Amino acid sequence: MNSADLGRRVGVPSTALFTDQYELTMVQAALKAGTADRRSVFEAFTRRLPEGRRYGVVAGTGRVLDAVENFHFDDEMLAFLRDQRVVDGATVDWLADYRFGGDIWGYPEGEVYFPGSPLLRVEGSFAECVLLETVILSILNHDSAIAAAASRMSAAASGRRLIEMGARRTHELSAVAASRAAYVGGFHTTSDLAAGFRYNIPTVGTSAHAFTLLHDSERDAFRAQVDSLGRGTTLLVDTYDVTEAVRTAVEIAGPELGAVRIDSGDLLLVAHRVRQQLDELGATETSIVVTSDLDEYAIASLAAAPVDAYGVGTQLVTGSGHPTCSMVYKLVARAESADPADPLRPVVKKSLGAKSSRGGRKWAARRPDEYGVAEAEVIGTGEVPADLVDRQLQVELVRGGEVVAREPLEAARDRHIAARAGLPMSAMQLSRGEPVLPTEYV
Amino acid sequence: MNSADLGRRVGVPSTALFTDQYELTMVQAALKAGTADRRSVFEAFTRRLPEGRRYGVVAGTGRVLDAVENFHFDDEMLAFLRDQRVVDGATVDWLADYRFGGDIWGYPEGEVYFPGSPLLRVEGSFAECVLLETVILSILNHDSAIAAAASRMSAAASGRRLIEMGARRTHELSAVAASRAAYVGGFHTTSDLAAGFRYNIPTVGTSAHAFTLLHDSERDAFRAQVDSLGRGTTLLVDTYDVTEAVRTAVEIAGPELGAVRIDSGDLLLVAHRVRQQLDELGATETSIVVTSDLDEYAIASLAAAPVDAYGVGTQLVTGSGHPTCSMVYKLVARAESADPADPLRPVVKKSLGAKSSRGGRKWAARRPDEYGVAEAEVIGTGEVPADLVDRQLQVELVRGGEVVAREPLEAARDRHIAARAGLPMSAMQLSRGEPVLPTEYV
Repeated sequence: MNSADLGRRVGVPSTALFTDQYELTMVQAALKAGTADRRSVFEAFTRRLPEGRRYGVVAGTGRVLDAVENFHFDDEMLAFLRDQRVVDGATVDWLADYRFGGDIWGYPEGEVYFPGSPLLRVEGSFAECVLLETVILSILNHDSAIAAAASRMSAAASGRRLIEMGARRTHELSAVAASRAAYVGGFHTTSDLAAGFRYNIPTVGTSAHAFTLLHDSERDAFRAQVDSLGRGTTLLVDTYDVTEAVRTAVEIAGPELGAVRIDSGDLLLVAHRVRQQLDELGATETSIVVTSDLDEYAIASLAAAPVDAYGVGTQLVTGSGHPTCSMVYKLVARAESADPADPLRPVVKKSLGAKSSRGGRKWAARRPDEYGVAEAEVIGTGEVPADLVDRQLQVELVRGGEVVAREPLEAARDRHIAARAGLPMSAMQLSRGEPVLPTEYV
Repeated sequence: MNSADLGRRVGVPSTALFTDQYELTMVQAALKAGTADRRSVFEAFTRRLPEGRRYGVVAGTGRVLDAVENFHFDDEMLAFLRDQRVVDGATVDWLADYRFGGDIWGYPEGEVYFPGSPLLRVEGSFAECVLLETVILSILNHDSAIAAAASRMSAAASGRRLIEMGARRTHELSAVAASRAAYVGGFHTTSDLAAGFRYNIPTVGTSAHAFTLLHDSERDAFRAQVDSLGRGTTLLVDTYDVTEAVRTAVEIAGPELGAVRIDSGDLLLVAHRVRQQLDELGATETSIVVTSDLDEYAIASLAAAPVDAYGVGTQLVTGSGHPTCSMVYKLVARAESADPADPLRPVVKKSLGAKSSRGGRKWAARRPDEYGVAEAEVIGTGEVPADLVDRQLQVELVRGGEVVAREPLEAARDRHIAARAGLPMSAMQLSRGEPVLPTEYV
């Protein structure tokens, strides 16, 4: 079962095969070598933000917890691994009993992050931790990319309503996760029914051009919609002539008409004209919803337009130019054995290129300046300095295999708004720039 | 159940909620207006290719057929729609009985396409067809984007092996569909176990830096891997010093060593050095696998390098700059009633911008020149000219609600290779350009 962030519980299949084959073959080799149970610490982090972005947004943590809980191999999966000789019999037997029994700490969902931020720290035996790599990265890389785009759009919208409507532009289940991540990033509603069903995100809908074209006239279509859905509905007014459509819409629905949607043309110009026309017709309370390939820049450029809500699709679900993050999951420390008394030794790869990382189990804290505004992301491996103890970012998520940090999705959304508000003002600028906080290693 | 393209059948949940809310509210309004059963034709097509791309690749058709078969509302979903007042009681009752009973024709999977190509044509009542819009577009837009990137990479690789290994860079189920689409586009194997399980795509694996770091020395790690996985395994040689690692690898595995993987540095230079070293050590049959942020341009630039296989992740699963296609699903014709004798009337939106489309139920054919090379994508609404009758592209996929066109995934892959080979040579150029075939409307 999926916790659905305390919303509806949806039966989900095991997540155990959302895994690269090498995770399993590494387990096999380590089992044989007697190193599989060495106590290990893995960390998920990113070496850089997408080019020009000022901050990242952690999203998907709740889904990661579900994935860890649902990571187990059923008989059919085990038969597949055996029949295809993915791993040997001893490893299949080991996998049959697999349940993650370690600990996970991490940035809570909605928190912002910077290059090097240790977003998730997974501790346990090498074998139990390495198996989770692929699915953890899938979730964090996807969901955080969408949330980052959503956050920029939400900053650009300055409080106006944002509707997620990108389901048709991405994989059908990606879309559900994207709705969830968009909500974390500040969106208000979604058109995706599965997102409403699974995560209790409020769902909304308007109408498509097909509905108008189905009827013998635009008037017939509007009347059909208002008759059935009420005057509060949103009528799509750009199938033929916008001015004519707005007139017809108010004639049929009266000034109680909920909203009109504009999906093409010069949105700035058309929105002004439609607002004026609605006002002249007495429909002063009727909202204007605009859609049509919006991104954060288009939203910002419409700040001066009389627009009440933005419907965003393609650019949201594809991360507005950055459809994935570059999070990695690295072994940063390990002991010589499973013995808790055996000390953890930092490990690090000596890379040929820019792929270096830092060894050791890390803590992270955000240091405020004298005005309370964040001024640095501080990361260390030793003792936490006294002035940063209360500023630490990681929270306990899983203890001995048990999830201990369930929360409503709303909490992640609120956390994001608060975290973003704690950053320097330049975080809200849409222009390209450096990360708004420097990362300091101590 | 999911056909998994005649591979393993995997239980999948209903696809009915992978749907935008307005599809359901339009059904409600049309039911009340008495227009829901008007015979209708919807078409999925794209107005343009992603900028600079020469051709598109149809992928996801087999998944669309699964989605249509699995599109039904269960009790919990119906309760959700009722409780949340998404639609009224009469519509909930109608949805409870919903099964698509119409016809679908389309380009077979793996076929190439161009702007305007009618990739899918869905016929039935307005209500039964409009409901499928969102999930059909989700699948085609995602899968075709990945297949297009895969096809370019496969052209660039000129027959060298291509390994899909992007699972960690995209949503966990997107990843499975991406493996499938990559296979259609010409990839050979995947690291994603779920893709092997569901679609019988051959799975492969190497090793990660974590495995080396887990052990007390690189030598220990290599020995552990070879002891367990055999000499045919692929050893990762760039954790510390590549030259040292290659020497150790051949010392341990002997000249039967299957492959070495290089994941960082100047791949062109390093591959040459490693090849020379392997040859000098007598490991002339040992392959070189390169990974590390490859895309089609990087693959092409390594054509002169002694590389045997490319592992591609991020750029594949994000469509190499184009993570979605811009396919739309439009009502193009409808009758006044459900009566089959009632003529279909073309319908078309008069748009304000570039969003125009053409009304009428369309056929499509690819016209060859005198040498048998494709020279135009011909699309029409009337009778098919005699010389094009045998060149038609659409095939019957669903008849009266029954899927009639299941095929093994291999067939789609073979079809893609053949279709691409039938295009002008310039289709294989990676540089930006116009679609390699013009679209002609007759």
